[in-house]
Amino acid sequence: MPELRKDPIIGRWIIFSSERAKRPSSYNSVPERNDATECPFCVGNESHTPTEIISYRDRASEPNQPGWTLRVIPNKYPALMVEGDVTREPKGLYDRMNGVGAHEVIIETPDHNSDLTDMADDQIRNIFWAYRERMLDLERDSRLKYIQIFKNHGEAAGASLEHSHSQLIATPIIPKRVAEELAGAEKYFNFKERCIFCDIIKQEISDQERIVSDFDSFVAIQPYAPRFPFETWILPKSHQSSYVEMSDSDYLRLAQCMKDTLLRLKKALNDPPFNYMIHTRPVSKKSQEYYHWHIEIIPKLTKIAGFEWGSGFYINPTTPEEAAAYLKEIKL
Amino acid sequence: MPELRKDPIIGRWIIFSSERAKRPSSYNSVPERNDATECPFCVGNESHTPTEIISYRDRASEPNQPGWTLRVIPNKYPALMVEGDVTREPKGLYDRMNGVGAHEVIIETPDHNSDLTDMADDQIRNIFWAYRERMLDLERDSRLKYIQIFKNHGEAAGASLEHSHSQLIATPIIPKRVAEELAGAEKYFNFKERCIFCDIIKQEISDQERIVSDFDSFVAIQPYAPRFPFETWILPKSHQSSYVEMSDSDYLRLAQCMKDTLLRLKKALNDPPFNYMIHTRPVSKKSQEYYHWHIEIIPKLTKIAGFEWGSGFYINPTTPEEAAAYLKEIKL
Repeated sequence: MPELRKDPIIGRWIIFSSERAKRPSSYNSVPERNDATECPFCVGNESHTPTEIISYRDRASEPNQPGWTLRVIPNKYPALMVEGDVTREPKGLYDRMNGVGAHEVIIETPDHNSDLTDMADDQIRNIFWAYRERMLDLERDSRLKYIQIFKNHGEAAGASLEHSHSQLIATPIIPKRVAEELAGAEKYFNFKERCIFCDIIKQEISDQERIVSDFDSFVAIQPYAPRFPFETWILPKSHQSSYVEMSDSDYLRLAQCMKDTLLRLKKALNDPPFNYMIHTRPVSKKSQEYYHWHIEIIPKLTKIAGFEWGSGFYINPTTPEEAAAYLKEIKL
Repeated sequence: MPELRKDPIIGRWIIFSSERAKRPSSYNSVPERNDATECPFCVGNESHTPTEIISYRDRASEPNQPGWTLRVIPNKYPALMVEGDVTREPKGLYDRMNGVGAHEVIIETPDHNSDLTDMADDQIRNIFWAYRERMLDLERDSRLKYIQIFKNHGEAAGASLEHSHSQLIATPIIPKRVAEELAGAEKYFNFKERCIFCDIIKQEISDQERIVSDFDSFVAIQPYAPRFPFETWILPKSHQSSYVEMSDSDYLRLAQCMKDTLLRLKKALNDPPFNYMIHTRPVSKKSQEYYHWHIEIIPKLTKIAGFEWGSGFYINPTTPEEAAAYLKEIKL
């Protein structure tokens, strides 16, 4: 059973994942890369993964067999486990709880060599739709407080398998980073009676200098104070606190905006490793006036070193204005 | 002039460092490694660095000439600049300020091929003494609120030069990570009327299972909820809120404890890249009952991926109890 432990000073929770346990000697070994024949995410290898949760497939095909265009499966090495109760207990002055949650993998395409920038708009839309389906299903489990959807692309960004996929981890507490964003947005709302994200979007559209692209219902911007060079945020222009509040037709528009942004980053930065993360309201909360869901995309270009770990400051060598100008000029 | 910008939602400050500016095309190139002949930190190359601030050297030798055992110099590519006033100003709904501060490099040894585990105890003591000297000097500058001392060892941990060195960055605001630790420790003190770090040390010495070594005035532990595998903290056993409150004789003991810890990590993990960071009270504050300085050492063994960036959670594959048992068994 995985275990959650709380840092007693700053209150950050850590997941100790027994399924992912490593011997000290294995830390500095080079990971093996697999090709399509042995890739568990490839067509024909469905038996190498846990039983699928949902799939989009030909009507004539059977679950866990070929014929699919997208599969969602439980992670074979889950950070958190679906079974069990959330029990909190003390250990002297420390706090721990059982590692209850969900950890799923969204296999985005049957094609081993394709990434989001190669896919048809409809296929990307299906990925975003699958996120929604899984969120709506997991939101009914009262043990779960937050659903974090994210993608790791490239080994340096933490992807252990090449085949294009994203992941979902549902946690029994609201994560620290999310709680900070909620608290900051609520404080602003209490003072201004407006959503800070809506205000940011208005200012950015008026300033123009940090806009990368404007896609009807969505805007892609370089934020004013990004941690990383070329960090890009995609936000819905209209106020929505949760990803699942998006209108059905907007999933295709979001797919188009994401593809455009990732293509620009790929061409500008020579296919950089990157992560994207969906930030949405916690499942336990109702629709909120002060929070606004969005996607953060962070290319992995710089190293996090002692100053950043010690202080929580980040040093960014490229201003968002320079990055936006550069990305806007890319010919697609 | 570098610029500080504040994230409007969570209040984190970012440093935009004009001296370290990069063209987009330079991000994915392989950094050049330099050898001892061209290393600016080596003996004989003193003219390749900015003028030294302090040095420990033979009485017969001249500043900025050979004859030194340790030099402190301004960083040639400073993240923050010493000249100028701290002026805050709005930019629409955003906040910015001038990048005023200090950025120094402690060249720890004249020997290009030596690291902390090869040095004599006295030499390591000199490094820790130099940190103290620079802190005491910079604390007199009222523009500076915090002094972050840190070391990056190995390219993956962010070291751009091989020659053993550490760095100091003094910032015009109290960094977010430090503010969180102070707030957490103060909250505990208000409730318990005891320092949380002192309580942790007592519990760890009683439990024994996370102790790596016990050095008279210092203890090296695996914390209860570490972000990273083999993360190790060194704490003074007696209550001290600032690094500079340490007694003169303890600098040598700290050197011995640090060398022992780094040797264990080096042998256990095949000379891993690592960072260490000194956490001490802000310069603007007087001695505090609730805060306790310490050093955090984080080997770079795992990758930070989308889940961590999105949520602020960390997944750690090795429990601190396993890591402590392993490190304790290492033959030195």
